[in-house]
Amino acid sequence: MRWSQTLIPTLREAPADAEIASHRLLLRAGLARRLAGGVYTFLPLGLRSLRKLERIVREEMDAARAIEVLMPALQPGELWRKGPRFEAAQAVMFRASSAGRKAEGDMFLGPTHEEVVTDLMAATVSSYRQLPRTIYQIQTKFRDEIRPRFGLMRAREFVMKDAYSFDVSESAADDSYRAMYEAYRRIFARAGLTTMIVEADTGVMGGSFSHEFSVPCEIGESEIVFTEDGSYAATIEKAVARPEPRARPTATTPAPEKFATPGVTTIEDLDRSHGVAARDQIKTLVYLCDSKPCMFLVRGDHQLSEAKVATLGFAEFRPATPEEIFAALGAHPGSLGGVGKIKPAISRVYADADIEGQEGMVTGANEDGFHFRNVSLARDIAVDEFRPLREVRDGEPSIDGKPLRVRRAIEVGHVFKLGTKYSEALGAQFLDEHGKSHPMFMGCYGIGVTRTLQAIIEQHHDADGIIWPAAVAPFHVLITLVDASLAHHAEELHDLLEAANFDTLLDDRPERPGVKFKDADLIGIPVRITIGERSWKAGGVEIKARTAKEKTLVPIAGALDAVRDLLARS
Amino acid sequence: MRWSQTLIPTLREAPADAEIASHRLLLRAGLARRLAGGVYTFLPLGLRSLRKLERIVREEMDAARAIEVLMPALQPGELWRKGPRFEAAQAVMFRASSAGRKAEGDMFLGPTHEEVVTDLMAATVSSYRQLPRTIYQIQTKFRDEIRPRFGLMRAREFVMKDAYSFDVSESAADDSYRAMYEAYRRIFARAGLTTMIVEADTGVMGGSFSHEFSVPCEIGESEIVFTEDGSYAATIEKAVARPEPRARPTATTPAPEKFATPGVTTIEDLDRSHGVAARDQIKTLVYLCDSKPCMFLVRGDHQLSEAKVATLGFAEFRPATPEEIFAALGAHPGSLGGVGKIKPAISRVYADADIEGQEGMVTGANEDGFHFRNVSLARDIAVDEFRPLREVRDGEPSIDGKPLRVRRAIEVGHVFKLGTKYSEALGAQFLDEHGKSHPMFMGCYGIGVTRTLQAIIEQHHDADGIIWPAAVAPFHVLITLVDASLAHHAEELHDLLEAANFDTLLDDRPERPGVKFKDADLIGIPVRITIGERSWKAGGVEIKARTAKEKTLVPIAGALDAVRDLLARS
Repeated sequence: MRWSQTLIPTLREAPADAEIASHRLLLRAGLARRLAGGVYTFLPLGLRSLRKLERIVREEMDAARAIEVLMPALQPGELWRKGPRFEAAQAVMFRASSAGRKAEGDMFLGPTHEEVVTDLMAATVSSYRQLPRTIYQIQTKFRDEIRPRFGLMRAREFVMKDAYSFDVSESAADDSYRAMYEAYRRIFARAGLTTMIVEADTGVMGGSFSHEFSVPCEIGESEIVFTEDGSYAATIEKAVARPEPRARPTATTPAPEKFATPGVTTIEDLDRSHGVAARDQIKTLVYLCDSKPCMFLVRGDHQLSEAKVATLGFAEFRPATPEEIFAALGAHPGSLGGVGKIKPAISRVYADADIEGQEGMVTGANEDGFHFRNVSLARDIAVDEFRPLREVRDGEPSIDGKPLRVRRAIEVGHVFKLGTKYSEALGAQFLDEHGKSHPMFMGCYGIGVTRTLQAIIEQHHDADGIIWPAAVAPFHVLITLVDASLAHHAEELHDLLEAANFDTLLDDRPERPGVKFKDADLIGIPVRITIGERSWKAGGVEIKARTAKEKTLVPIAGALDAVRDLLARS
Repeated sequence: MRWSQTLIPTLREAPADAEIASHRLLLRAGLARRLAGGVYTFLPLGLRSLRKLERIVREEMDAARAIEVLMPALQPGELWRKGPRFEAAQAVMFRASSAGRKAEGDMFLGPTHEEVVTDLMAATVSSYRQLPRTIYQIQTKFRDEIRPRFGLMRAREFVMKDAYSFDVSESAADDSYRAMYEAYRRIFARAGLTTMIVEADTGVMGGSFSHEFSVPCEIGESEIVFTEDGSYAATIEKAVARPEPRARPTATTPAPEKFATPGVTTIEDLDRSHGVAARDQIKTLVYLCDSKPCMFLVRGDHQLSEAKVATLGFAEFRPATPEEIFAALGAHPGSLGGVGKIKPAISRVYADADIEGQEGMVTGANEDGFHFRNVSLARDIAVDEFRPLREVRDGEPSIDGKPLRVRRAIEVGHVFKLGTKYSEALGAQFLDEHGKSHPMFMGCYGIGVTRTLQAIIEQHHDADGIIWPAAVAPFHVLITLVDASLAHHAEELHDLLEAANFDTLLDDRPERPGVKFKDADLIGIPVRITIGERSWKAGGVEIKARTAKEKTLVPIAGALDAVRDLLARS
C-alpha cells in the first residue's frame, strides 16, 4: 500500500478531550476519527488492526468449535420483555423509533444478544443430541453511555465478540465455560495484551460465577488487586490480603469493662488519649441496607470497602445519618459498638474476616463518651456473618506474602456462567434421552474487540507513538523513502515484501524526512526500512525495529530475511 | 465442518409470509432466520456465503484503489441538517433515542453515509495533491421500510457496500465513476449474478446521471426493458421501442375537417363506427401537473406511461377529472384534442415521439360528439415538446428490431455521479495548484450486499433447492455419509479436501439417506460426494454436481481431481 493512495491523517496534537495516551494515539496516528461522543469512524490503519484482531478472535473461537452467526442490531421490545433483564438494561439501551414504527411494537439496539440467541436456540434445537452448542458473533453493539469517554474504551457504538453456550447439564456447561476461558487466554496472548484474570461478581447478568479479563489502566472503571508475578488477582470486591498480626495476645480476656472516654470520637483520639493502638480497636459503622440498619465491624486500622458491601446482595445501601444512628443505638458515631443488646434496632451485624476470633479489643459502648475494653468477638458481639469486608491497600502482603498492587483496570473480556435464567424465561428447552424436557444450561462470553484494540495501544506505546505487536499491526513493514530518485527501488522492495506476505506500507509522500520519521514513530509499524541515497550508495537500505535506537545497513538482497528476523523477535 | 457440529436448521415448509422462491429458500435451507419484520439473523450457511460475497466486493474495490474504512451506524442529526437531504431521508430513517440523549442532540441510524464521508474528507483532505480518493466500507445499514417484504430483498437492517469518490474536476470524477462501474460489472460477474445495467434517474440523490445494476425479479420495485441479447436495457422511464409504421401515408393532407361522431367516446368506438384504425387516431389525455392542466398526446393504439410523465420534473401530477377537463376545454373525455385554440386553458402540450411529423390523423374536436380528420401534427397542433411518453410493451421490437422484454426488476447496485451538492453543503473543499479553493466533485456507489446474496438464489435454484455458484457457495463440497460404518473414511476425505482448500461440509448426522439427499438438494452445495457401502465395495465414492442427474463412481484417490474438475465447470 502506498501512503499517497490511502488516508492516514496523522495529527501533531491530539484534541483536548483525549485524556489518556491510547486515546490520543488513536486520533494522532490516524487510526480513527470521532464523529460524535463515543462514536468513531475507523480509518484505514485502525480498520486493518481491527480486522487482524477480529481474525485472531475468530480463529480461536473456531478452534474451540464455537459456531459463527450474525445476529441483528435491531431487537424487538416484545422479546426483551420476555427476558429477565429488560428493566435493568433499559437505562443504557438505544430505542430505534420512526414514524411508521408505533403500530408494530418498539425496537431496541442490542447491547448484547442473550435474548436473541436464546430465542434462536429455542426455535432450532430440541434434542440433547444437538447439544452442546456454542454460538458466537463479531458484531456492532450499541450502548447509550451517559458519559462516553476515553475513545474506544467507553464508546456508544463498538465491536464486540459475544458467545453463548448451551448445554444439557451444569457440568457440561462448565466444560463449555472452560473452553471459552482457555480460548480467551490464547486470544489476548496472541494479540500481545497482558491481561489479569480475576474472579468477578456477576452483577446484572445474574450468573453463578464469572471471570474478568482485565488490563491495568489508570482510567479503568473498576479496581483490581494482584501480585506482580501473576500468582494472585482479584477484583477489589473479592480481594483479600494477609491478616496483619496484632501486637496484643488474643487469649481469653476478662469480661468487657466500660470506661469513660469523654470527647473521644475517632480511632486516633482513642489511641492518643488512652494508648489503644488502632489495630486493637473495632471500628463500627452503620448503613441502611434496603432501608434496614446494618452494622459493619472492621479493625480500627482498616477501612470498610463499600465495593465489598455491594456484594452482599442488597438492592441499595447507604451510610446511616447521625440522627438515624442515634435513633437506633442511642449514641453518636465515635461511641458505637456491637456489645450488648443491639437487636432488633440493628437488623444484621457483619464483621470483617480479619477480626474473627479476636480478643481484648476496644469498641464504643453505645453511650456517648464511653467505650468497652476486653471485648471478645466470639463472646461479646452477636456477629451474623464474618467475611472479607475491608479495603485492601496497595503494597500490603498477599496471603502468600507477596506485595499486592491495587490498580484501576479496564475489562476487555468476561466469561459468565449463566445457568438457566434465560433459557427458562425464553423457553429454550431440550428433550433428554428419556424424552423429558429441561431448560438448557447457558454461559455467555464477551470480548470488547474495539476496546481491546485500544488497550493494546495503552499497553504498547512510548513518548513518540504506538509500538504495535506484530500480530495486530496494521502493516508489518514501513518503507520510508527519503530520496524520490530511489522511488523505483522502494516500489520493487514493497512488491517483494508483499509477495512474501508481509503487509507493507510505502511512505512515498513528498514530505521532508523529519516529518516522515516522526509519523513512522507515531503509527508504530514494527519494522522500518529507510531507503535513502547515502545507504543506497553504501550498498543497501537501513532497517530497524520500531523500538530499536540504531539502524542496520542491509544489502537489498538481504532485506527479506532481515524483516523476517525482526518480526520473529517483535 | 461437520454438520453435527454446526447449526443448519433446514425446514420442510417455508413460513407462509415467504412470497418468492429465494425468500422461501433462504429460510428453508437454514441460511437465515427472521427475528422481526425485515430483520434477520444470519446462520452459519448464510453467513459463509455472505462473507464470500463480501470478499469479492472487497477485492474488486481494492483493485480499483478504493480505500476501505468503517463508518458508524449512529449519525448525529446536527450533521444531517447541514446536508441537502435531511427532509427527504427522514421518512425512512430510524432515530436512536434514550433517556440521556435529549440533552446532547438527536442521533439517527445511517441509511447511507454521504454526510459522514463528506465531513470526513472536509476534515482530512485539503489539497488537490491528495485527490482523487474513493472511500468505501462494507457496513450494516438501517432503513425503516414501512412494509419490509421478501426476506433480504426489502429489509430494515442490511449489509451494504457504499463507496464515495472525491475528485478535483468533473472529468476526473467521470474517471472515478467509470472505475466503479467496471468494478461493479466484475463483482456481479464473479458472484454469478447476471445483471442488467440501465441508465437511471437520480431521484432523491440529486446527481447528474447514474446507472442501475438490476436483476429481473417478479417482485422488483421497478420495471426494466431489455433485449435478451443484452444489447439494450433501460428503465421503464427511459425505454423506447421501434415506431410501428402506420398503414396510411403521412404525406401532406387537406385542412382539418370536423365530422360528427355522436356517442363515440373511445378509440375502439371510432374504429368500429367510422373505420378509423387506432393507429390513425390521436389519444388525448389531460393531467394536472403541479396544479396546471397539461395535455398528453399518444397514438390511439398506445398507452401513456405515467412513469415517463414522472420524468418531466413535476413535483406532483394526476389525471384531471372530467369536470376539470370540461372547465378547461368545453368537452368531455372522448372528444378531446389539440387542434385549435387550447391555450391558455392548457398550460403545456406534450406529444409522444412516435407521432412527431404524422399527417392525416383523427382526433377529438373539443366538442362533444365531434372529431377532426386530416390532422397534421406539425401544422395543426401547438405541441410544446415531443418526447418518448408511451408505454413500451413486452414483445415489441427494439430500435434494432430485437424483441423487447418488460420485466419487474430489483436493483442490486447503483452508481451515481453526484456533483458538488454534498461537498458544497458540508465544506469539502480543496486548494488547487494556484491556492484557489473549490468544492470536491463527488460520486457515490452502492451495492446491497445482502440483497445481492438473495438475488443470486433467486437466479440460481430449481424446485428442489438452491444451486449455488461456486464463488459464493457456503461450501464447495458436501460429503453425504450414508453408512455410519464408513465414518472414518468420510472424515479422511473431508480432511483431505479441506487441506486442498475446498470448503467441505460432512453430513455426519444419524438421519436416513432420503432426508440427507433432500437436504443436500435444498442447501445446494455445488459438488456432492456420497459415501455408502455399495459404492465403497465397488471401489470408491459417488460424485455429482448439484445439477447433474447421474452420479459417477470415482476411486477415493481420484476424488480430489474429480472435485476440481466439477468446480471448474460449475
